[in-house]
Order: sequence, then structure tokens, then C-alpha cells
Amino acid sequence: MTATHNEMANAIRFLSVDAVQKAKSGHPGMPMGMADVATVLFTKFLKFDPKAPHWRDRDRFVLSAGHGSMLMYSLLYLAGYDDVTMDDIKNFRQLGAKTAGHPEYGHVEGVETTTGPLGQGITTAVGMALAEKMQNAHFGDDMVDHYTYTIAGDGCLMEGISQEAISIAGHLKLSKMIVFWDDNSICIDGNTNLTLSDNQRQRFEASGWDTQQVDGHDPAAIEAAIVKAKKSGAPSLIACKTTIGYGAPTKAGTHDTHGAPLGDEEIKGMREGLGWRAEPFEIPDDILESWRSACARGSADRQNWESALKNADPKAREKFDALYSDQLPAGWMEALNAFKKKMSAEAPKLATRQASGKTLEVLTKNIPAMIGGSADLTGSVNTKTPSTASITNSDFTGRYIHYGVREHAMSAVMNGLSLHGGYIPYSGTFAVFANYMMGGIRLSALMEKRVIYVLTHDSIGLGEDGPTHQPVETLAMLRALPNFNTMRPCDVVETAECWALAVANTKTPTGMVLTRQGLPTLRTTYTDDNLSARGAYVLAEADGARKVTIMATGSEVSIAMDARAALQGDGIPTAVVSMPCWELFNDQDDAYKASVLGAEGGVRIGVEAAMRFGWDAYLGSNGDFVGMNSFGASAPAPELYKHFGITAENVVAKAKARV
Amino acid sequence: MTATHNEMANAIRFLSVDAVQKAKSGHPGMPMGMADVATVLFTKFLKFDPKAPHWRDRDRFVLSAGHGSMLMYSLLYLAGYDDVTMDDIKNFRQLGAKTAGHPEYGHVEGVETTTGPLGQGITTAVGMALAEKMQNAHFGDDMVDHYTYTIAGDGCLMEGISQEAISIAGHLKLSKMIVFWDDNSICIDGNTNLTLSDNQRQRFEASGWDTQQVDGHDPAAIEAAIVKAKKSGAPSLIACKTTIGYGAPTKAGTHDTHGAPLGDEEIKGMREGLGWRAEPFEIPDDILESWRSACARGSADRQNWESALKNADPKAREKFDALYSDQLPAGWMEALNAFKKKMSAEAPKLATRQASGKTLEVLTKNIPAMIGGSADLTGSVNTKTPSTASITNSDFTGRYIHYGVREHAMSAVMNGLSLHGGYIPYSGTFAVFANYMMGGIRLSALMEKRVIYVLTHDSIGLGEDGPTHQPVETLAMLRALPNFNTMRPCDVVETAECWALAVANTKTPTGMVLTRQGLPTLRTTYTDDNLSARGAYVLAEADGARKVTIMATGSEVSIAMDARAALQGDGIPTAVVSMPCWELFNDQDDAYKASVLGAEGGVRIGVEAAMRFGWDAYLGSNGDFVGMNSFGASAPAPELYKHFGITAENVVAKAKARV
Repeated sequence: MTATHNEMANAIRFLSVDAVQKAKSGHPGMPMGMADVATVLFTKFLKFDPKAPHWRDRDRFVLSAGHGSMLMYSLLYLAGYDDVTMDDIKNFRQLGAKTAGHPEYGHVEGVETTTGPLGQGITTAVGMALAEKMQNAHFGDDMVDHYTYTIAGDGCLMEGISQEAISIAGHLKLSKMIVFWDDNSICIDGNTNLTLSDNQRQRFEASGWDTQQVDGHDPAAIEAAIVKAKKSGAPSLIACKTTIGYGAPTKAGTHDTHGAPLGDEEIKGMREGLGWRAEPFEIPDDILESWRSACARGSADRQNWESALKNADPKAREKFDALYSDQLPAGWMEALNAFKKKMSAEAPKLATRQASGKTLEVLTKNIPAMIGGSADLTGSVNTKTPSTASITNSDFTGRYIHYGVREHAMSAVMNGLSLHGGYIPYSGTFAVFANYMMGGIRLSALMEKRVIYVLTHDSIGLGEDGPTHQPVETLAMLRALPNFNTMRPCDVVETAECWALAVANTKTPTGMVLTRQGLPTLRTTYTDDNLSARGAYVLAEADGARKVTIMATGSEVSIAMDARAALQGDGIPTAVVSMPCWELFNDQDDAYKASVLGAEGGVRIGVEAAMRFGWDAYLGSNGDFVGMNSFGASAPAPELYKHFGITAENVVAKAKARV
Repeated sequence: MTATHNEMANAIRFLSVDAVQKAKSGHPGMPMGMADVATVLFTKFLKFDPKAPHWRDRDRFVLSAGHGSMLMYSLLYLAGYDDVTMDDIKNFRQLGAKTAGHPEYGHVEGVETTTGPLGQGITTAVGMALAEKMQNAHFGDDMVDHYTYTIAGDGCLMEGISQEAISIAGHLKLSKMIVFWDDNSICIDGNTNLTLSDNQRQRFEASGWDTQQVDGHDPAAIEAAIVKAKKSGAPSLIACKTTIGYGAPTKAGTHDTHGAPLGDEEIKGMREGLGWRAEPFEIPDDILESWRSACARGSADRQNWESALKNADPKAREKFDALYSDQLPAGWMEALNAFKKKMSAEAPKLATRQASGKTLEVLTKNIPAMIGGSADLTGSVNTKTPSTASITNSDFTGRYIHYGVREHAMSAVMNGLSLHGGYIPYSGTFAVFANYMMGGIRLSALMEKRVIYVLTHDSIGLGEDGPTHQPVETLAMLRALPNFNTMRPCDVVETAECWALAVANTKTPTGMVLTRQGLPTLRTTYTDDNLSARGAYVLAEADGARKVTIMATGSEVSIAMDARAALQGDGIPTAVVSMPCWELFNDQDDAYKASVLGAEGGVRIGVEAAMRFGWDAYLGSNGDFVGMNSFGASAPAPELYKHFGITAENVVAKAKARV
């Protein structure tokens, strides 16, 4: 009655090829090649319960080679996740289906992260494995003790981000991270030897990984390798020699199986060759039963874990539950408001990166889930606080990650920390290096994860480092991204408000765009209200019937205030609007927007030390802009502001020209 | 009379610390640590002539660790480049100075590429070394025979892009590429062991590099290592054990020397310790003389090379000169126009990626400088033509590079090919992966290099691959970048026109944003004029006094035409404007812009399967937009267009609501 390994693996193969064939689109070769490895992993090792997909102590499985999504969906169906039915398999890649072209987090239970952009999965898995180490260090083996498994292809390993992942995982000795490399020697253009000569095992070993090589179609060898890898004190690579499109009579081992349906004739031959008698989308009862019973084994583990949790120290349990709660701990907002009040009164001159550092002192003290870090710019981005000790590979109780000069990995590792659960990751680098992390930032937004990017040195205001380091296009790049809040506060009070919004927003990642240079405190009248919550607001109303509205963000708001003083002095009633977050402002109703921007046809001047791109949405029919229209230059910041004409005088002149 | 090695190296050290001190800003530690290596390289090995910085057969030197820019400027001054005077050194990091905060290509002779964003330099150097191999294969040792040297720091080697560089350089066996790793164990946050445990030599060896380790303060050992590296059949890494801030009495070997001036006291102690008696910004005559005479040795080499070139086969010489000319070969435009004419007549239904492939067949046949490639998506991005055979590590005569799944390296390698001279690189991947290459794309724009990015699968029109692969924000991201032309042609004729602009524009890189799905030919009336050259133009004027203007790009132009037909049918005179390149349109005069966009206050509808961000600049006071306001989804393309409401019906409805 019990099916053989081959029958069980072939169930994956036929679900995959039949679904791709029906969709007329997809990648069958990879699921066919890795079916044996996946079968061994899911039926014998992976600690999970398909009936409780959110069990905190489950092993995580990440399909980094996300184009092989039918491997994922086949596994979910065969393992018995209620969320994936045979109809879902039949609807592969159709509108509204759970079985999207690439595995998408949030669309279907059991998919731990969105993959497809290569290299993201293996790096996100580093974040998950790190989260496990950190929680294990706090709560012990009874509460937290799980592995993170990843399947990566040649494409993942060619992407630079994978090196950052390998390097940091090796440094941190993430021993519960196990990567299967689908070593099939085929990429889309043909044989990998067209472009690749790396000795991958040697490469991983150079970063301190344990490595093994197995025949990826030999279940006993795969099993032995996993047993060994689990015992390792380092992260493990298992290089699996496989045949892409395994089982296809004429196309196996070729790139023809990579990204296109096999065709009816080839599938027919495959049925014959592998002795598979079932019709498309039918899995013989004994094979399905074998899958389901094998994958039900985790249920008892899960129940034991739940019992152990009940019997655990109540304080530890409370802490553990608090980490996983969407509710932030009581008192955080009060503490932050007290800080805001103090700053309003003291009105210091502070760079917003420093203001952010002070805000983080308050937040990290009150919110244990916050995990900080930086890409080797800790002193510059002000992300480390007294509450966040550094994590090392011998002590994971800290809350600060030295990501190294690995911005792209930093973004994906933060995604992994958030996806694992229990953490609100934030980390910093210079704003211009958002360029290096856009792959990860985009997935934070797409997956709706609370990941916070601290992006300092946000304009020509950084001065001497020059145009390579001066972001002029970065604000537009981030603002154009759906489901991402780009915050650019003008002083310490707004900085605190923006942080409050960022940590409370569970479904939208945030970019905190901050200055290097000092800024005056403009919000000197304290209010409990978070004025930044509506994205833009009137910071200083016109004295008299408003004729001019100056809109600005961040460091340019104080320039706007100076311009307002001059215009008022000349009898021109002028309001200043601070716009720390366009995205939140865009969500307000028309009446509020009109009250902020002033009447249509009124003079509106936008001021921002960045490209105009995007600003026209607010300038109306009688507007102008003061900002950048080229890359920056290397010089002290005050000279650059003059050189590029971002001055109160220039704002005044442009306003007067239109009044 | 001849100065010692130590004196010559100390000249670099003191110029560096004094300039940083005067600027009150900069990174002294790295020039101090690598002064010995740089002195040996420049005075004994580097083939160059400071009096002829554009000599084609010079060795290339790339300071990948660009923050150590004072090393570069010190070398240029000491070697005798006329472009760098002592006043320039004194003006380090000041407005308008050649000696910018980071080395900037085009600002000063002798800087081969802009560096600062870590990892770019080493990867750009791969492009230069590859260019040498390719030209050497065509023209032989007498005309082309030079090395590419790079200094990289720990930061460069932590960036993922460096792995892509190492991997492809190893695969291609770029034996004339030599990298010095400044192995000083210090990063900005502190000791590199905070975050790094890699065995770098083993890592390079895994990609087929030769590696050596030397004491970076032992000139004899450095010399021996370079001699050996030059003989290698593989690219070479020389790991140089150095002390950051070498010579600083209390700060040497610490991260205090990394990114801040040393302070007067420390510099005073350094003068005493190293026995340096000259005042700041004074180099003793004998030391300067020794530098100048050592670096004059290349003059004879250069003259010999010029003589050899004169005596070379005239046909080869002509070909060689043609590569380096800013003028494209005669006849290319005529050939392209003939193609345009043929397409206008045949009016095929073609995806613009296929249209691009056909255009490239014409262009690559006529322009030998064009070097194609793809990041493992050759069949999808249509970049390979009959004229572009694949380059392999045993045959560099081809013109097509299989970059592998290494998008970021692809961008930087293309920068290197362009900077080396002789090439117009173009290469393709999916548009969404512009995210992975923004670091390199930004430098193409900043350096004003003719690098062409083929970016296909440019919207939800790619269908089933889903939101991970559907760029909705990418157009805005590229359009916000200064000095970058984002082209999104609507049919095969516009595609040919956009390519003509891209290859002829020597100072601005281009993104060719192209569809996966088939599009009708709309430009069926042939004209020699390149209508796309003005960025936007009236594709179909209104029949009657214009009431509505529909503006669209790429695949949405045909939707605009359908909407126009419906509106005209309902008696509403409607024009369609095709906007293949916003940047070029923005450069037109107001009269032309008005003639295209119609009168202010007229109904204008923008249509693009992307975010609205940026469109408001064209919509005027009575405009609306049909496009995306979220990420996409996985489904067949026609269903997605309906689902997201990007249809002629919707355009018509929005226009009517405003007429």
C-alpha cells in the first residue's frame, strides 16, 4: 500500500509538467530535476504541520529558484495543505489563482517568502536562520529549534547577492541553514559552461560552510547528506547533481525544459518512460496517501511543542508571544511623545540622522522586537542604541547586526527576519545605496512587510563626498514604488513622528530619508497629534489671505521658512507646507488636500534638493520648483546649496515672478 | 640624488594626509596603507605616459576603493600629469576642483573610471580587461597589449557585485587583470572580524584566479608578486597585508584613520616618525624628480607603439581607428532607414523586443564597435544577431558576451568596455531587473558613457510571470535619473528610431524599454525623419478642432489609437501623442511642446501600464491617467489589461468625463 520513493517523486514531476502544459507557460525542468531531493526533505526531514502552517517552530523552506514554482505548489498539495487544491494546481498562472507564476508570500499558505528575482530567496533564508538563532538564544531549544532549508539554482548562485548571503551566513555560523544547490549545469542560454566556471563547493568553503556533494536522484544519498548537514556547526551546502527535466524522454538534461512547456508528445513519452499511468491532475490514491501520511508526522511534534510552551516559564512565554503580536508593547507611544515634547521645548539643531538615533534610543528601549543594523556605517547612520548590543557568532542575544558592506543582502535579510516572525528589522546605509538594495526593497513592498530602511546623507547636503554619494533621483525611485512609505522629516519632532508611523505600520515598509547636516527644530509647539500622519500639513499658515504656498521636505523646509519670512516681509501672505510623506498625503481626502495645498491657481513652489520628477502632481497650474536638475558635485554643503540655487532667495524670486 | 622607495611612498602619504586635513574631510588611512604598493606599481610596472593620458595601449589603473581618492590624486601629481597641480591637491574636495571627493571620470585626466560606490571599480576593470582581450584578438600584440590593475578594499570584496566580477573574469580567463587587495582588516565599523570571516584567496581560487599574498609594505615582495602575476594565464589577486594609516603614530591600524582627518598633532608625530622634513604641500625636489623620471619611462614605449601603428597594415589601422572614432561608420543610417521603410510597408505585428532584435541585425552588421550581450536571457531579449558571435575564453574575436545571471556586473562591465574605448556596449535583461543594476546604470549616466540597456518584458504585458517580474515603477526610476534616456517605443518603426538615437548619442546612456507581447505597426507612412528624436510627437492629429489629447508610450499607444477611433466616432476630435522618450521631449522649446500637448486646459489623458508617478508634468489642469496604481498579478496578459482597467474603453470614459 505504501508508495515507493520514485512514485512519490514522480507525483511532483507529473503535477508540474501537466500544470505547465495546461497553463502553456512556466518552468517544468527544475521541479522535475529536484523532485527527488524535495521528496526526501518533505517526507523525512522538514518539521512542519500542513494543518498549522503558522506554527512558530516549524522548519522554514525557501524555494530560491522561484521559477520552479510548480515544485512548491506540488509539494503543498501533496503534503496536504488545505490551501492548495487540485483546482488550484489546474489554475496555475491564471488570474486570481493562488498558484501564481512565482511563489508569492501571502497568496498561499506554506510559501514562506516571495521568490523569482534570483538570489533573493537564499538571502532571505539567511534572515530566517538568523532569526531562529536569536530567538533560540533568548528562549531555548524547547521553544525555538528549527532549520531553514533552501533550494537554490545556478542563477541564484551567480547573482552577487548570494555571495553576500554566503559570506554573512558563514561569518555568523548559521549552523541550522541548509542549502541544496540544484547542480544541473543548465541555464536559460544553454549549458552553464557558457558563462560559469566556479568551483561552488570551494567558494562556500571559503566562507566557512560545510559542503557535500550527492547524486540528486539517489534518495539514500540525499537522506544521508541531510543527516550529516543537520549535525554541522556551520551552515551547509549540499550540491545535488541533477538532470534538469529528469524523465523527459528527449529533452531531459537540456535547456529546452527550463522555461517552456514540454509539449504533449514529450509528456506522453515521459508517462511511458516513468511508468506513470494516472491521467493529468490525478494522483493515484496510494501515492497521495503515502505523501499525506508522511507529512502528517509533524502534527505530533507541533502538539508537543504547544504543550511545552504551555508549561514554559510564563514570563518567557509572555515575552515570546509579545514578539509575535502585531500590537506594540504598551507605553511606547507615551515614551515617544515625551521625547517629542522634550525636543519641542529644547529645539536643538540636529541632523535628522542624529534625531533618528535619539528616537531609536526611545523606541528600541520600549520595543524589544526591533532589531537594528547597518551596512558598515554604524557611526554615520546612527542606528545603534544602548538597547541594541551587537550580535556575534558566539552570542546571539544582542539586537544589532553588523551587516558589513552588503546592502543588498541587508535588505533581503531584513525581509527574512520579518517573515520569520518576531522581529521589526531596521537598518541603515547612505540613501544613494538604495540603488544597491532595490531588489530587496521591492520585495519588502510586494510582500507587505514591516521593514524599515534608514537612508541617511540624503542630498547634496552631504557635501564633499560628491555626486557618487549624493542621491538626486532616489526619492523619486522610492516614491514610485507601490506600498512603500518614503519619509523625509524636516526636524527632530517630525523624525520622531515618522518613526512612530513606521513601526506601527505592519503592512508597509518605510524609508527614513535623513540628512547628514544639522537642521533647526521647526516644530517648537508641542502637540500629541502626529502631524506627519497625514503626509503633509501646514507648518506655518500665511499671515493674511494666502497668496503663496511653499511645499518642501526635509532639509529644505527651513529654507522654505526663511523664504516665507522674506515674502511676508514684502507683504505677500505665504504658507509653508511640510510634506514628510507623499504617499500618506495622497491617501487623504480632497478637502484636506485642498486645505493644505491652497486653492488651484494659487502660487505654489516646491523645494527639494532632488530632481523635480514627481513634484508636478502638487504644483498645480501656477507652480514652480526649486531643486536639482543634474547630478551634484563635491564641495562643502553650504557652497553646494548656493551653487545649485537651492536658497530662500531663489524661492522668493520664483514666487514673486508668479504672484 | 635618487630618492628611496620609502621617500617616494611617503610623498603619497603626506600629500594625502595634508590634503584631507586641509579639506577637513576625506579618507587618509587607505592611501597611507597602500602607498608602497602604488609606488611600486606606478614607478616600475604601469605602462603609461602622463603626457599622453589617452594613449590607447596604456595600462589601465582603477582605484576601486574610491574613497581613497587622495592616493589617486597624489599619484597623478607625482607621476607628472599636467592636469593635476599642487593647487589642485590643496583644493581637494572644494567646489569646482578637479580633485573631487571621489575620483570622477571626465573631471581629471588619468582617472579611468568614477569610483566610490564600492565594488563598481573592480567590475568596471573586468570590462576594461575584456576590451583588451577582444581588441588584442583582432589587432595583435603590436597594437593592443596592456594590463588592467585594480586596488580593491574589503568593502569592494564584500559587495555582491565583486563576486559577479570575480566569477566572470575567472571564467573568461582575463589573464591581464591584476587586483591588489588592500588587506588591512579594518572597515568603518571597526575590525573586519565584526562581520567578515572569508578566506578571500580561496574564494578567488574557486573562480579560477591565481592568488598570492605579500607584505604590502615590502617593495621587493610587491615587485616579485607583480612580475609573477603578469605571467599568469589567469586573472591574479595579490593580497597585500597592510596597515591602514601606516605611519600615523597612535592611530595606525585603527578605523580612526579610515574616514576622518588625522588631526594636526597626529600628523606632526607622523612627520617625526617617518622623518619627513618638508612642509605641507611641498615635495622635496629629489623625491619629485625621482617620481617624474620614473614615470617618464612610458614615453618611449608610447612612441614606439605609435611608430608600430604607423607601420601596421593600413586596413587594420583603419579598423582600429574607426572603433575609436565618435563618428559611426558611413552607411549605418541609410541601412537603418531602409529597414524602417521596409517595416513601414510590411507593418508586421511584432513585440518591440523582436523589433529591437531585427533592428540590431542591421546595426551590428554596420557598426563593428557594437558589443552585445545578455544576462542569461538571450532568447528572450533578442540581443544576439548573426554579426555577433559569442565570446569564449579561448576565442575573443566574437562580439557577444554571455554575462550570466549577473545583471549588476553586466552594467559595470559595459561601463568598462565603453571607458576602455573602442566599443558601444549594449545588453539585455528583463526591465524589472534594472533594480539589480541601478548601481551601474547610475554610473553610466554620471560618467556620460554610451551604454545601452535593453530592458524587455516591460509591464504587466509579460503576463504569467507575475508581479515579481512586472515593472510598474521602473520607468519612473529611470526617468528620474539625470543624463539617462528612457526610450519606450510603440512599434517596430519607433524601435528603429530609438536605436538610432541611442547609438548616435555619445554622452548619454539609454534604456530601451521593450514589450514581451506583440504590437501592431502604427507608423505605416514612411519618413526619413526620426520622429522620436523630439521625444514625443503627434502620431494621429484630431479630425476636427482638437478636444482631447491622449498621450501614451510603448504598448499603450495602440490602446490610445483605439480610444481615439471611438472618440472620433462619437464626434470628439482626438489626437494621439506617442512619447517614446520624455527626456528628449523635455528638451524641446515651449512652442513645440504646446503643439504636441495641445492647449492648456484641454483634456489630456496619459496612458501607460506603469505607475502614474511623473505623468502629472504633462497632464495639465484638466488631465487624467490610465495605468497602474499597485503591483501587477500573474495571469495571461490580455486578462491583466482588463483586470487593471488599461483599456480603450476606460480611456474613452475618462476623456468623456472631462470634455
